[in-house]
Amino acid sequence: MIRIGLAGYGYWGPNLARAVAVMPNARVEMIADMSPPARERAGRAHPAARLTPSIAEMIADPAVDAVMIATPVSTHFDLAMAALRAGKHVLVEKPMAETADRARMLIEEAARRRLILMVDHTFVYTGAVQAIAGLIETGEIGDLYYYDSTRVNLGLFQRDVNVIWDLAVHDFAIMERLIKARPVAISASAAGFLNGSPENMAHLSVYYDDGAMAHLNVNWLAPVKIRQTLIGGSRKMVIYDDMQTSEKVKIYDRGAEHGTDPYERMVSYRLGEMRAPALSAREALVTETEEFLRCIETGATPLTDGASGLRVVEMLEAASRSTRMRGFPIDLVTLKEAS
Amino acid sequence: MIRIGLAGYGYWGPNLARAVAVMPNARVEMIADMSPPARERAGRAHPAARLTPSIAEMIADPAVDAVMIATPVSTHFDLAMAALRAGKHVLVEKPMAETADRARMLIEEAARRRLILMVDHTFVYTGAVQAIAGLIETGEIGDLYYYDSTRVNLGLFQRDVNVIWDLAVHDFAIMERLIKARPVAISASAAGFLNGSPENMAHLSVYYDDGAMAHLNVNWLAPVKIRQTLIGGSRKMVIYDDMQTSEKVKIYDRGAEHGTDPYERMVSYRLGEMRAPALSAREALVTETEEFLRCIETGATPLTDGASGLRVVEMLEAASRSTRMRGFPIDLVTLKEAS
Amino acid sequence: MIRIGLAGYGYWGPNLARAVAVMPNARVEMIADMSPPARERAGRAHPAARLTPSIAEMIADPAVDAVMIATPVSTHFDLAMAALRAGKHVLVEKPMAETADRARMLIEEAARRRLILMVDHTFVYTGAVQAIAGLIETGEIGDLYYYDSTRVNLGLFQRDVNVIWDLAVHDFAIMERLIKARPVAISASAAGFLNGSPENMAHLSVYYDDGAMAHLNVNWLAPVKIRQTLIGGSRKMVIYDDMQTSEKVKIYDRGAEHGTDPYERMVSYRLGEMRAPALSAREALVTETEEFLRCIETGATPLTDGASGLRVVEMLEAASRSTRMRGFPIDLVTLKEAS
Amino acid sequence: MIRIGLAGYGYWGPNLARAVAVMPNARVEMIADMSPPARERAGRAHPAARLTPSIAEMIADPAVDAVMIATPVSTHFDLAMAALRAGKHVLVEKPMAETADRARMLIEEAARRRLILMVDHTFVYTGAVQAIAGLIETGEIGDLYYYDSTRVNLGLFQRDVNVIWDLAVHDFAIMERLIKARPVAISASAAGFLNGSPENMAHLSVYYDDGAMAHLNVNWLAPVKIRQTLIGGSRKMVIYDDMQTSEKVKIYDRGAEHGTDPYERMVSYRLGEMRAPALSAREALVTETEEFLRCIETGATPLTDGASGLRVVEMLEAASRSTRMRGFPIDLVTLKEAS
Repeated sequence: MIRIGLAGYGYWGPNLARAVAVMPNARVEMIADMSPPARERAGRAHPAARLTPSIAEMIADPAVDAVMIATPVSTHFDLAMAALRAGKHVLVEKPMAETADRARMLIEEAARRRLILMVDHTFVYTGAVQAIAGLIETGEIGDLYYYDSTRVNLGLFQRDVNVIWDLAVHDFAIMERLIKARPVAISASAAGFLNGSPENMAHLSVYYDDGAMAHLNVNWLAPVKIRQTLIGGSRKMVIYDDMQTSEKVKIYDRGAEHGTDPYERMVSYRLGEMRAPALSAREALVTETEEFLRCIETGATPLTDGASGLRVVEMLEAASRSTRMRGFPIDLVTLKEAS
Repeated sequence: MIRIGLAGYGYWGPNLARAVAVMPNARVEMIADMSPPARERAGRAHPAARLTPSIAEMIADPAVDAVMIATPVSTHFDLAMAALRAGKHVLVEKPMAETADRARMLIEEAARRRLILMVDHTFVYTGAVQAIAGLIETGEIGDLYYYDSTRVNLGLFQRDVNVIWDLAVHDFAIMERLIKARPVAISASAAGFLNGSPENMAHLSVYYDDGAMAHLNVNWLAPVKIRQTLIGGSRKMVIYDDMQTSEKVKIYDRGAEHGTDPYERMVSYRLGEMRAPALSAREALVTETEEFLRCIETGATPLTDGASGLRVVEMLEAASRSTRMRGFPIDLVTLKEAS
Repeated sequence: MIRIGLAGYGYWGPNLARAVAVMPNARVEMIADMSPPARERAGRAHPAARLTPSIAEMIADPAVDAVMIATPVSTHFDLAMAALRAGKHVLVEKPMAETADRARMLIEEAARRRLILMVDHTFVYTGAVQAIAGLIETGEIGDLYYYDSTRVNLGLFQRDVNVIWDLAVHDFAIMERLIKARPVAISASAAGFLNGSPENMAHLSVYYDDGAMAHLNVNWLAPVKIRQTLIGGSRKMVIYDDMQTSEKVKIYDRGAEHGTDPYERMVSYRLGEMRAPALSAREALVTETEEFLRCIETGATPLTDGASGLRVVEMLEAASRSTRMRGFPIDLVTLKEAS
Repeated sequence: MIRIGLAGYGYWGPNLARAVAVMPNARVEMIADMSPPARERAGRAHPAARLTPSIAEMIADPAVDAVMIATPVSTHFDLAMAALRAGKHVLVEKPMAETADRARMLIEEAARRRLILMVDHTFVYTGAVQAIAGLIETGEIGDLYYYDSTRVNLGLFQRDVNVIWDLAVHDFAIMERLIKARPVAISASAAGFLNGSPENMAHLSVYYDDGAMAHLNVNWLAPVKIRQTLIGGSRKMVIYDDMQTSEKVKIYDRGAEHGTDPYERMVSYRLGEMRAPALSAREALVTETEEFLRCIETGATPLTDGASGLRVVEMLEAASRSTRMRGFPIDLVTLKEAS
């Protein structure tokens, strides 16, 4: 029975606790949150868990084997480092840390102590992303040409992070899972239209060493909510639309061919079948929690380990730098070299 | 009665001829096309028009008052210049010319001879774009924050131009009409996935001097056809979806506000009404042809005159340069200075 | 403080309890359910409520002022009658009873004892239906021509009721709210395709005394979920699409006119604006619970009182009879006469 | 070379003429229309065809082998009978005649003279309907449970026919093609909301001898255009949405199963893959015209022969009778008995 300590019971923490609660080989041992109402909610939902206002106390508790960190980004590094130093395995919210340097320090600490360090990139564990990963791995998509994501909506403003760190982080994590090529450069533009708020709109282009490209459109000030990714390959193309309640992933059996009539506009394409595969209806967070527990028990490397979390943070840093220079391309040469 | 000579009866020429044919104050005088089957089709549709394989002959014909040029891009400059020198008014397909320098020469020639020079930016004359322009001009949108367009589909490959010159040109023309601020820089990324073809996917970010931004996503290798533009303003937001058969333009009465609860994810927005205004069902090409004839008769400056055509070409050139440097930002300082 | 006793903590009961819990002038006093796991769930969510396996005991308890009944349809009459006889106000799940006769007995009993009898027609209290009711009452829709609803999905099979009693009941309740005219006849067809199951597909036509018509398409065996109602009026038309996350109600400013060209297919219509009004985001069940409490306190008649619940049951009975005779029309002459 | 005479060059006639014009084994010999502007348009599009104001003269012309009739419904019988008596093969617009008796007379006349009599049920020849027919014939759908069509839009009012004869006729023709069982009864409701116009809204239920059902929702006074048919089978379900530009036909690999938990709402279904097959992009009218010519040349029976046209008219007649009795079911016992 792996005993989990949960740091933070605000927006996301309750979801983590709920996922742990359904695991046969783990239990919520302690929940730490400074806010009295948060602790009261935690107590109602998890009567067997011990409650404390002090995350430090929880980290130090010998009855806690692993710590899940669901606190604001600015605290991720200190809490994760403290937990590792106390000999606890760590699952930390995305983004893993505020800087790549700090992410590297966490990776080193975990490696030195042979502890599991995992980043909560939840989307990677959804049925949709798993299905797309399968399409790529079996070769059904062919060579991956591009990943083009639109992730916009209205009003989820945050004070401590801008729209890149809030929304693009999801796509970077998904790209980590889907794209085997190495990202070599990033060019990004951003704008903030509300005084006193961080950037709320950004467009990011990522160049890969095999010629593939990724593009992310993230925006907190859009009239409607869109969660749509186009994925192009040499054999098939995919639309992943997370706003659909069914048919989230559609695979298109189409390809373009060159036309030949010199006097007519060249319109030539073959058109084939489309199919929407059955997706796992399993909750992503349950799959992810199982992965964390499995790695703790076996010593295996998590799918979303510290190294992948680091690469996501490196992309976020590079994108942020590029936005300050109107899209000036930032090299990502060191990315994935150690992996 | 304004007598029109039409150069090129391939993909677009027949539409121009059809628009002229319904005008009370103009007629299709001559149609020139090298292709015998094209001339045969022209003859059936416009039995009263004279047909010729020689555009030069048509330009020289004293019975032709104005020339419409619907030939490949590489011929636009030479044909338009010849027509102007022959004293004819000119309507030329977009893009106006292959380079900004050549576009400037056409503008000067037309000015010197006091002839109308108009560029066929058809989208500017659609009911949808006219309605959006009205929303901006009346202040209903408020300050314009961004223009974000997705214009992707499968298979309209062309050999002589890449996807930027083929598709982004439409958005640049629309932006010319809608955005009063001055574009100051452009950053663009592009990729071509098919050997021997020009770039088929590009993302372009345009920076304006008042902080507004535009972004264009153009792609010939997408699984589905999307023609969707989000427009954000300080008062209202707009979705312009050209694939809808009705409700192409939707205006959202929403705005974001800041939330305050420090322990909860900040989700706070006011939500208001949406409306889809009635749009003019008039064919854009008919409206545009009337504008051309009106300017010929009155000497007025067309809405899509040579100067606007030049600025579109300057944007196309700058975007193309940026794509060769992975999004390196290109300054557009000279744009709109003369206007 | 009105003390509520809740009968049944299965699918719907927890929602009722949750709504009561947020009321300032009521509390969940007791929860009765035969199932031990249901009582365990109830206890966790409502620690202050007393739990009992016996609904009879709860109804007899002097500390209970009003009873909410969320048990299977076949038990509605007996439980509601027992509660009324014990002097308790009653909110009963839809449909109110299995037969119109029994519904009438409940109405009489409540009237005799001056108790509130309300039927839980939740849809009537949604922001969407409230908005449409407003459009009708202000005359914006004009004369109501038709109500045409499609309510289909896959797999919510029930054993004790067929698709008419399960799904059409929602539309009948909405029609009760929206349509002022008197229903005079009903013709319905139905079919059951799975052995041992009740009818899973039905189509119902309702005739009104002013010429208006309603039609309901209900189906448990459809490939996709559709919740779409078209409402036609002499001035405007409405689409109410409950599957949309935003813009659930759209109002169309269109009207048809007669064409006149004898040689052409007559296509003539004027086309105007569409708008989607801002809807109340308040949870329907909260609004409904407030209505129940308000009527208990003031003696007012609920919007969805026993009389409206009876008319819904009469429609359900008539529809069921018609389906057994392949659409033979059943007169509804007595409906709404007493109202 | 089969020489075609075309009667009527209004709304539909030009489409027929265009289809004939692309056939290698036929030509448009004559076009007859009373309207001078119609003849002028016909002359421009088909310069080689002889024009006449007199359909009688055209029917009598020895250079005409077959007659296509695209005139108002009320003239179908007289013109088709005259053409058959003159020894011409006949393709007649739908509906074939105003009454089933007249349709039978045409069938008998054609049989007696060994002439081809075909009804222009164009939808039967679309790629979508052909694909669905294939799914049924191969057994992929399993037993056909239901056909449920919504065919509504705004403003195509006609004076000589009501909405059933105008729109439901398409579904009856498609059902003729898809459903092998025998229709045994029909129940229909209808209403007309505009003074002086025929019924503009109707709902029709058709009962089949194997328990299958069909339902048609047709309406000229709807706020949006919908062309959507749900088809349920024991193995798969289909959505045929003719308003989609791609993916018109979607096949769902789902099925419902019974749930068993007595305390919970029974929600149980298996969920599988969806696919949208590649459809023939061939124009339906071209396929249909080929069928007509092939039958003339070989003596084969057309897919949409007189017998199928008769059954469609019998359904239209029965539906119309039922609407006058508020859905009273009309037996269709004689239908398909002769076939």
